[in-house]
Amino acid sequence: MHAIENDEPAMYKLVESFFRSTFSTDNPLITEAVKRMLAAGGKRLRPRITLLAASACGGDPVEHLHLAAYMELIHVATLIHDDVVDNAQTRRGVNATAIDYGNRVSVLAGDYLFAWIFKNVTDGYPHPVPNILSATLADICDGEVLQLRGLGDLDLPLAAYVEIARKKTASLFAASAQCGAIMGGGSAEEIVALHAYGEAYGIAFQMNDDLLDMTADERSLGKPVGNDLTERKMTIPLVLALGNGNAYFRGQVARLYSGTAHDGIPGVIAGISEQGGFEGTRREIQAYVTRAKTALEPLRSGAAKEELAKLADALAG
Amino acid sequence: MHAIENDEPAMYKLVESFFRSTFSTDNPLITEAVKRMLAAGGKRLRPRITLLAASACGGDPVEHLHLAAYMELIHVATLIHDDVVDNAQTRRGVNATAIDYGNRVSVLAGDYLFAWIFKNVTDGYPHPVPNILSATLADICDGEVLQLRGLGDLDLPLAAYVEIARKKTASLFAASAQCGAIMGGGSAEEIVALHAYGEAYGIAFQMNDDLLDMTADERSLGKPVGNDLTERKMTIPLVLALGNGNAYFRGQVARLYSGTAHDGIPGVIAGISEQGGFEGTRREIQAYVTRAKTALEPLRSGAAKEELAKLADALAG
Repeated sequence: MHAIENDEPAMYKLVESFFRSTFSTDNPLITEAVKRMLAAGGKRLRPRITLLAASACGGDPVEHLHLAAYMELIHVATLIHDDVVDNAQTRRGVNATAIDYGNRVSVLAGDYLFAWIFKNVTDGYPHPVPNILSATLADICDGEVLQLRGLGDLDLPLAAYVEIARKKTASLFAASAQCGAIMGGGSAEEIVALHAYGEAYGIAFQMNDDLLDMTADERSLGKPVGNDLTERKMTIPLVLALGNGNAYFRGQVARLYSGTAHDGIPGVIAGISEQGGFEGTRREIQAYVTRAKTALEPLRSGAAKEELAKLADALAG
Repeated sequence: MHAIENDEPAMYKLVESFFRSTFSTDNPLITEAVKRMLAAGGKRLRPRITLLAASACGGDPVEHLHLAAYMELIHVATLIHDDVVDNAQTRRGVNATAIDYGNRVSVLAGDYLFAWIFKNVTDGYPHPVPNILSATLADICDGEVLQLRGLGDLDLPLAAYVEIARKKTASLFAASAQCGAIMGGGSAEEIVALHAYGEAYGIAFQMNDDLLDMTADERSLGKPVGNDLTERKMTIPLVLALGNGNAYFRGQVARLYSGTAHDGIPGVIAGISEQGGFEGTRREIQAYVTRAKTALEPLRSGAAKEELAKLADALAG
C-alpha cells in the first residue's frame, strides 16, 4: 500500500495538504471528528481519482481540490455511520468515532457531513454533479442494505456479490472519476470512459479488500484478520470457494455462520484457500483491472492517464 | 391536536392520499419502513405548510405534492436517526424503527431517505431549492449537536435554547414554507415573509412540544410523560423555571439530572409549574405565534393565508 503512495506523491500530497490547511466545516466538533479520522490514515484514492480524471481531461487538479475532498468526505461519513451500524470497535487501527464520541454524535456527525457536502455542492457545482453525488449516496446505502440481507446466505450468487460491490463501493469511485471528468472539462466520451474506469476500479478494489481481510496481517489491516467472516459477510473468496461444491467445506462455513463454532475462522480461511477462493478472486480482480484500463483507451495520452492505469494495476498486486 | 386536523382536512387529505397511493422509493425495504412510520400518525404539518405557502403565493397545491412529501420525509428520516441516537424504545406509541429493524437498518434507512430525497430534488427543482434543503439538514444536525452538548446544563440561557430550537426544529418549518413559496411562484417579498412565518411557527411548535411533554397524557404523547426530563434535556419550561432563581427547585433538578434521584420527575414537573415555567412558556409561545402571524401580513388575503394563521393560533392553545 505504501508503494502506491510513493509512486504517486503529487495528488496524494495535494489532497493531504488541503485537508490539513484548508478544510473545515461550519461545526468545530464535527471538523475535529473528521480530522481525527483523516489523520488515522487512508490512501485518499477517491479524491486522487477525481484529480487525475480532471487532469486527464485537460483540467488543472488544483482547481478541483474541494470537489475531490467531498469524495473522501462522503467516504468518511459512510465510515462514521458504518461504525455505528456494525458496532465496530476499531477503524484503521484507532478507536472508532462511535466509541470515542458515542453513537449519538456519530449518527449526527455523519448526517451533518452529508448535509454540509450537499450544501456546498448544490451551491457551487452545475447540474448534474449534485445529482450524481446524491444518487451515489443512495446507491451506497442500497448496496449496504443488500449486503445486510445477504449476510450468511451461503447460496449468494457471484452476480449478486458483484451488484452489492458495484453499489456499496464502486459507485463512489465511479462518481469520483465522472465528476472529476465533468469539472475538468471532459467531452461526453471522456466522461463516460472515466465513469466506466471508476466503476471497474471500484469493483476490483472491493474484491481486493475482501482478499486482504483474510490474507494480510492485523497490523496493516488495522482490524482483526478474518473480520468479514466474524460478521458473516459473503465476500468474494468465500462465494467462489463455496461455488466449488465441496460439502465438507460448506458444512464448516455453515457451522461458523450459524454461530455453533466460534473458533473456526482459521479453518475456514484455510478451506477457502484449498477450494481455490483466493486464486479465483485474484483472477476476478485481474479481469476488472483489465476492464478499468480498457475503459481508459479513449482518453488522450499523458501522465494522468498513465497514473490511473497504474492505480488499477496496483490492485492486481 | 385532532381539532387541527378537522379544521383543515383539505391539505392533510391531499398529503395522506399522496403517501398512500403515489409514494414509493427505489428500495422496497425502506419504502415499507417509511410507510410504517407514516401510518403510526402525525399531523403532516410540514407538507401542509409547503402546500399552503405555495397556495398563498398563487400556486396550485396539487402540483407541489412531491415537494411537500420531501419535507415530511426529511422529518421522518431525522426521526429514524433520532431513534438510534436516543436509543428510544417507542415513537408515536409504536415500536421505534430501530427496535423492529435493528440499528444497522435504521441508520441506513435514514441515510437512504436523505439521499433519495436529494437525488430527486437535485434532478427536478431549480436553484436554490436543493441548496435550501441541504442547508436545512445541516442546521438540524447542528441543532441536535448543540442540544446534546447542552444536556443537563442548568445554566443554559434562554437565547441558547431558542437557537437550538431554531436550528433543530424551526429550520425545517422555515424551509417548508420558503420552498412552497418559491415553487408556488411567490415574489421575493412573499418568499421572505413565508420563511419568517415558518421560522417563528417552528420555534413556537418546539416550545409547545416541550410543554406537552410535561402536561399532556402518555396516550396522546405516544411516549412517557416527562420523557424530556429523563433525557436531561433543557426544555423551555425548565429553563424559565430555573431562571426564577429558587435554590430548592434548582437542587431538586440537579439531583434528578445528576442521576442521584430517579423518582423525582413528578416533583420536578410540580416545581416547574410552581416556578412559573409553564406560564412563562405559554407567554413565549404566544409571542412567537404573534410573530408568525405578523410575518404573514405582506401576503395576499385568502384561504391559504387564513389557514396558516389558524395553524399558528392552534399552537397557543
